[in-house]
Amino acid sequence: MQVQAKAAKEVGAKLESYSFEIESPQEFQCSIAVEYCGICHSDLHIIDNDWGMSQYPVIAGHEVIGIVKEIGSQVNHLKIGDRVGVGWQKSACLQCSDCLKGNENLCNQNQPLIVPGPGGFANHLLTDSRFAFPIPQGIDPKVAGPLLCGGITVYGGLRAAGMSSGQEIGVIGIGGLGHMAVQFASKLGNRVTVFTTSEDKAEFAHQLGADRAIVVSKGEAPPKPDRLLNILLSTVPASLDWGAYLEHLDSDGTLSFVGVSDAPLNLPIFPLIMKRRRILGSPIGGRGMMIEMLSIADRFKIEPIVEVFPSDNINEAIDKVRSNSIRYRAVLDFNQS
Amino acid sequence: MQVQAKAAKEVGAKLESYSFEIESPQEFQCSIAVEYCGICHSDLHIIDNDWGMSQYPVIAGHEVIGIVKEIGSQVNHLKIGDRVGVGWQKSACLQCSDCLKGNENLCNQNQPLIVPGPGGFANHLLTDSRFAFPIPQGIDPKVAGPLLCGGITVYGGLRAAGMSSGQEIGVIGIGGLGHMAVQFASKLGNRVTVFTTSEDKAEFAHQLGADRAIVVSKGEAPPKPDRLLNILLSTVPASLDWGAYLEHLDSDGTLSFVGVSDAPLNLPIFPLIMKRRRILGSPIGGRGMMIEMLSIADRFKIEPIVEVFPSDNINEAIDKVRSNSIRYRAVLDFNQS
Repeated sequence: MQVQAKAAKEVGAKLESYSFEIESPQEFQCSIAVEYCGICHSDLHIIDNDWGMSQYPVIAGHEVIGIVKEIGSQVNHLKIGDRVGVGWQKSACLQCSDCLKGNENLCNQNQPLIVPGPGGFANHLLTDSRFAFPIPQGIDPKVAGPLLCGGITVYGGLRAAGMSSGQEIGVIGIGGLGHMAVQFASKLGNRVTVFTTSEDKAEFAHQLGADRAIVVSKGEAPPKPDRLLNILLSTVPASLDWGAYLEHLDSDGTLSFVGVSDAPLNLPIFPLIMKRRRILGSPIGGRGMMIEMLSIADRFKIEPIVEVFPSDNINEAIDKVRSNSIRYRAVLDFNQS
Repeated sequence: MQVQAKAAKEVGAKLESYSFEIESPQEFQCSIAVEYCGICHSDLHIIDNDWGMSQYPVIAGHEVIGIVKEIGSQVNHLKIGDRVGVGWQKSACLQCSDCLKGNENLCNQNQPLIVPGPGGFANHLLTDSRFAFPIPQGIDPKVAGPLLCGGITVYGGLRAAGMSSGQEIGVIGIGGLGHMAVQFASKLGNRVTVFTTSEDKAEFAHQLGADRAIVVSKGEAPPKPDRLLNILLSTVPASLDWGAYLEHLDSDGTLSFVGVSDAPLNLPIFPLIMKRRRILGSPIGGRGMMIEMLSIADRFKIEPIVEVFPSDNINEAIDKVRSNSIRYRAVLDFNQS
């Protein structure tokens, strides 16, 4: 089958139309007619080869929603016509202790959808069905894509930090990740405090479910806490004054990193020790957690807020993602392509 | 009653004999005839006013073992003649949520035994009985003192990191803290790896129960791991190559700090995120944990290894602690004083 894709032919290039052939699905594979695909900052990092592992032409896109068109001989959890989603991860060894514990996201052999191989900026995707997840009927397919990457990232980071209910949860940054984190935390029965640099976003945070929003000017420390948090999720790719943020955590509280800068983490140790605080980093989530997250998003009406672009306008959409002017996730519509 | 103590009359001074009066115990207080008192590096920090909170004359000593001589009217968990121990903490508010959860060590009002007020470098101690813990009969009083501070510190740091049994546990540093951590971890059914800068201590680690000891030259990174750890406890007051040590942790593993340098923690974030690793700091332990730790030390024959000095030789003992030439804890004998 001929695939019509949007590819970056070299580092940082504008995306151009690009077509290639795919075979029929083998064994565990399935082919998907792409309906929508989100644009994530990681797509830009791969287009720009920021992590030194890109292979050109790059066909990015890893928040893919579409309809199963064909399945391989070993596929029995999907049938033709199902709506599925594919996120950052396309495979794992499925045999190591991480995989066997349901933590395929931690597998040493885990492979991203788009490195190497084509992702979802295309009208069709051939992929491993074992990392294609049925999308519950209650979730609007237009908004579902970002759940598969940004959504699982924040959900995983909150659960790894011990999110339960009745807790005080902080979210640093209201962007593509943070606006979903606020919804998960608040709709699952927690009180949410937001830290943002933007007055507008502080106001909007309340609509997302936040109880409180604290505006912190760029480069400044947050004010002293007047309410302590059990969990503080950092979604921002920036080096902040972590010592000052740690003071916002209650005893046994956890600062959970899901968005990070490349810079090393630099933080004072005494605020950790005095209150037995913790720090963790968390990457996406395993397959079991993905299904749980999608079910929760369905039942609790947790929806990424998206701007939808026709797939032909992909470069415009990418420019808006680059300039951080999307509120809050960009999604490409491939239905017409 | 007249107390004969050993006091530092000014910053960093040699200790001199010093006597003062104590009243009879009021309400929850008890008076203790000191038998033994350990010397901890924290005592030196207080003698030297390293933390800017010392009040002179300083009477240090916070690993106190002795016999209850008198009790106040409200004391009902101790009786005259009981052997008890007192550690770093002498009081807490007992009403905040930390205290009510059994985490008196995290209480904002928690007060160290020796700042302000006299500690255990003396023949008698008047203190709050609620922070005086009965010493199980099976524990040799000569070695018991270091359990009350160093022992609870490593036990707390291991438990906070999720120590269970059947785990792979690493201990960085075989000194006053580390030599107890190896015993707790191994005797409670875990396999222990030690990281030390000393060939001698590497050899000795096996006698303490370690399965494996890795010698890491000062200023160098540890070698690449060939076995991954669930918990890595750092007992050293030094800035190490934390990125290299994080690589020794398995997925969901925890690097637990109980000994630290004053320098900020500097570490790469990606090794945290890729394997969902954690970092925590832990201070001593609450009262419930103290009793649990003492019971385990009794039942599993976990004993600090000590050098005992007559109390009159306190300055010699302190010099040996200062020069890190004690193996592994110094204890003063006050029975003759």
